[in-house]
Amino acid sequence: MTDAPAACPEPSDRPDIWPGGATRGTDGALAIGPIRLTHEALGDALGAPLAAGPVIVADRASIRGRAEVWQSAMAEAFWSGYGMAGAQVYYAGKAFLAAELVRDLTSVGLGIDTASLGELTLALRAGADPALVGLHGNAKTDAEIDLALRSGIGRLIIDSIPEIERIAARARELGVCAPLMVRVTTGVHAGGHSFIATAHEDQKFGLSLATGAAREAAERIAATEGVALVGLHSHIGSQIMDLAGFGAAARAVLGLRAELLRKGIEVPEVDLGGGYGVAYTGADAVAPTQKQVADFLAETVREVCTELATDIPRISIEPGRSVIAPAVLTLYRVMATKDVVTQEGTTRRYVAVDGGMSDNIRPVLYDAAYAVALANRAPSGDLISSRVVGKHCESGDILVREALLPADVGPGDELAIPVTGAYGRSMASNYNMAARPGVLALDGEAAHWWLRPETVDDVLSLDAGL
Amino acid sequence: MTDAPAACPEPSDRPDIWPGGATRGTDGALAIGPIRLTHEALGDALGAPLAAGPVIVADRASIRGRAEVWQSAMAEAFWSGYGMAGAQVYYAGKAFLAAELVRDLTSVGLGIDTASLGELTLALRAGADPALVGLHGNAKTDAEIDLALRSGIGRLIIDSIPEIERIAARARELGVCAPLMVRVTTGVHAGGHSFIATAHEDQKFGLSLATGAAREAAERIAATEGVALVGLHSHIGSQIMDLAGFGAAARAVLGLRAELLRKGIEVPEVDLGGGYGVAYTGADAVAPTQKQVADFLAETVREVCTELATDIPRISIEPGRSVIAPAVLTLYRVMATKDVVTQEGTTRRYVAVDGGMSDNIRPVLYDAAYAVALANRAPSGDLISSRVVGKHCESGDILVREALLPADVGPGDELAIPVTGAYGRSMASNYNMAARPGVLALDGEAAHWWLRPETVDDVLSLDAGL
Repeated sequence: MTDAPAACPEPSDRPDIWPGGATRGTDGALAIGPIRLTHEALGDALGAPLAAGPVIVADRASIRGRAEVWQSAMAEAFWSGYGMAGAQVYYAGKAFLAAELVRDLTSVGLGIDTASLGELTLALRAGADPALVGLHGNAKTDAEIDLALRSGIGRLIIDSIPEIERIAARARELGVCAPLMVRVTTGVHAGGHSFIATAHEDQKFGLSLATGAAREAAERIAATEGVALVGLHSHIGSQIMDLAGFGAAARAVLGLRAELLRKGIEVPEVDLGGGYGVAYTGADAVAPTQKQVADFLAETVREVCTELATDIPRISIEPGRSVIAPAVLTLYRVMATKDVVTQEGTTRRYVAVDGGMSDNIRPVLYDAAYAVALANRAPSGDLISSRVVGKHCESGDILVREALLPADVGPGDELAIPVTGAYGRSMASNYNMAARPGVLALDGEAAHWWLRPETVDDVLSLDAGL
Repeated sequence: MTDAPAACPEPSDRPDIWPGGATRGTDGALAIGPIRLTHEALGDALGAPLAAGPVIVADRASIRGRAEVWQSAMAEAFWSGYGMAGAQVYYAGKAFLAAELVRDLTSVGLGIDTASLGELTLALRAGADPALVGLHGNAKTDAEIDLALRSGIGRLIIDSIPEIERIAARARELGVCAPLMVRVTTGVHAGGHSFIATAHEDQKFGLSLATGAAREAAERIAATEGVALVGLHSHIGSQIMDLAGFGAAARAVLGLRAELLRKGIEVPEVDLGGGYGVAYTGADAVAPTQKQVADFLAETVREVCTELATDIPRISIEPGRSVIAPAVLTLYRVMATKDVVTQEGTTRRYVAVDGGMSDNIRPVLYDAAYAVALANRAPSGDLISSRVVGKHCESGDILVREALLPADVGPGDELAIPVTGAYGRSMASNYNMAARPGVLALDGEAAHWWLRPETVDDVLSLDAGL
């Protein structure tokens, strides 16, 4: 979190925090390709006016491009010509999922990583190849296990020892063999905020390398009828900008694999998880490129396997945020402004918009910093220290704690908050019975809903007393 | 937040953190009235088995009773026989709303305080008397203002100066007079966590007393055609256990009222807002009773008005949490347990349940502490330091950071987390595409849904690509 007020970098200055197609047009408005980023222009592209409330805008070509670059960077780095066993990218669906997105991602070769009945159902209904679908979960339900086994997905990631027999029993009943990976807690943890750092030993996920629980799980799987060990899995955290942690985790997991190989237990694949960070504001460093990540991982894996005198396993990774976050932005309308005298005697401009913590809880939940830019016209005149707040009945409902915005911003203006593709809409709530915004995909001159906007009637549809 | 592990107080030990009808039955299970708190028994009472996932259980009589006590305590304390002008309790709908709840609360005389189009629509559709409905909001939309004016609600609470003319213009178009209250920031702030403390000067809500903005707003309303000043409003925070802050805020607002009266501007009502705290765990102090609050407020108001030599205005308050929170609990099923060695070399039991941060984000969002009790049978044997975690793909997905639970708790068991009535279901998300739990109202031997449980198909219904 940065509290130093800063103007939002323009797409030309920091293209990494904007969708690939974003520009500031000659008329001064932001645009993605030929479509201006105003509610009116988006409505024109869609062929129907947008309802009240914010709209989440996805640059479809940008997402597809980012996914493609991930997949090709990994494929090249782990090319069999280099003595490698290939690589596969799984998109971490928890970041954001929609059927059309699944189709776009799988069309460029990505698999889909899911973590619940809902995510798994969506991936399958959208047509993802089950062989390239995975299921995570520290508290899997019978329904989740059943759907996973019946649909023949490629991997279930095991999080506790008792799960193994539970899944095996169901697999034997169904007459199938369940492909299992063991989620290993390596003791390596990385990432910014403690809430989203994983792979501490003292955390809910995974089986410990240090205590031998991970090895025990792998051995049990190998010895149990109805299940097969297809790999080991490591996930070290979220929003990681420094690659060193991935190297340390890879070394630890490959070490366990070598140990298992010596006992005659095959481990064809190692998944190094997700957590690849992205820049959110101009104050953030530019994240490593997909090629830098892939080359680093390939070099590490080759080096460690050489040391361990093992073959090189197939490698998979699970980026979510780094596929989608920067290719999506949220467009808010300014509803009111207010100047408030702070305790320090300075004046702060509060800019209230038509959304808030219901559509993006990350600022409140993780103290996450975002940039914000005037979208509907060119910024001009003085910049003033501003706080962008939502419309919820809660004083903590802040979207951007401190930003420089033009002093003349007011009702009628629209603000773009970039890098909202991950953990925004997917964590959205109906707090204050707010209808959740739609996700509008832009594709050249066309616009279409990936998720349609909720209506008040949708929100009230669960009320049994109406 | 308390990190000292503690066993959950039984309903007989700390009735204030359990619904009024809660007991530990002779068979060892928790119950509300005659209904045991297990998914199976609740399904029997409902006449249909419950789906997978947690269920939120509301003790209807307990909620009605709490509301009735609030309303009668305020009516008695502000009785005209004491020279007072009466009082009105508005339920703060943001805590949780459902149509049947609105009917129960209004049937015992409460008004409904809303903060959005959705909340206002629900209150009106459920049949609340518009005269006893209010609308808050720092970023009101045209649709909200329109519905408020057309339906003739009793009060719109003004949060910025430009709003006055905006609402007045619309009121004149509609040929109505808009009843306005001014939300005053008094500089008094109270409550636990900074995210939910309001009425700092440096916050998004209200008009400052110190800078004169509040007085200016009141004067403008009095001078503007199409609007009428019906009162002043103060809200000082959330989860407040010490009443002193309410006294200080009342003094400040009544002072502004006296100033306005001297200028010939009538101010018939003062709303002292909400924020009345409740105990969540055995470590929390018992909250002041409704009668203690009412008597304290009445004494303060009388004393201040005597000092100021003014008449006594009608007083209203807006409790939300303190009406509903303790009368509701969430019942989870245990899915898995795991012992993890911590950095300190101790062992921590992780108990994973079938819900999590999607149905109760308060532990993650506010570091809120909850108690947790074994629901389906009597706790027996050793108690062990446990952490109750959810099923989401996020290591921060913790429901109870530290609790003592019986060592033999495992799959098949059910856990009750009490005091989940406020800001639980109302802030729920579909994170990980989790279907949000239903809210089941128990009423004697009967059970019925206030909110029906969501299904995966509901969750996917907004996906335009399916």
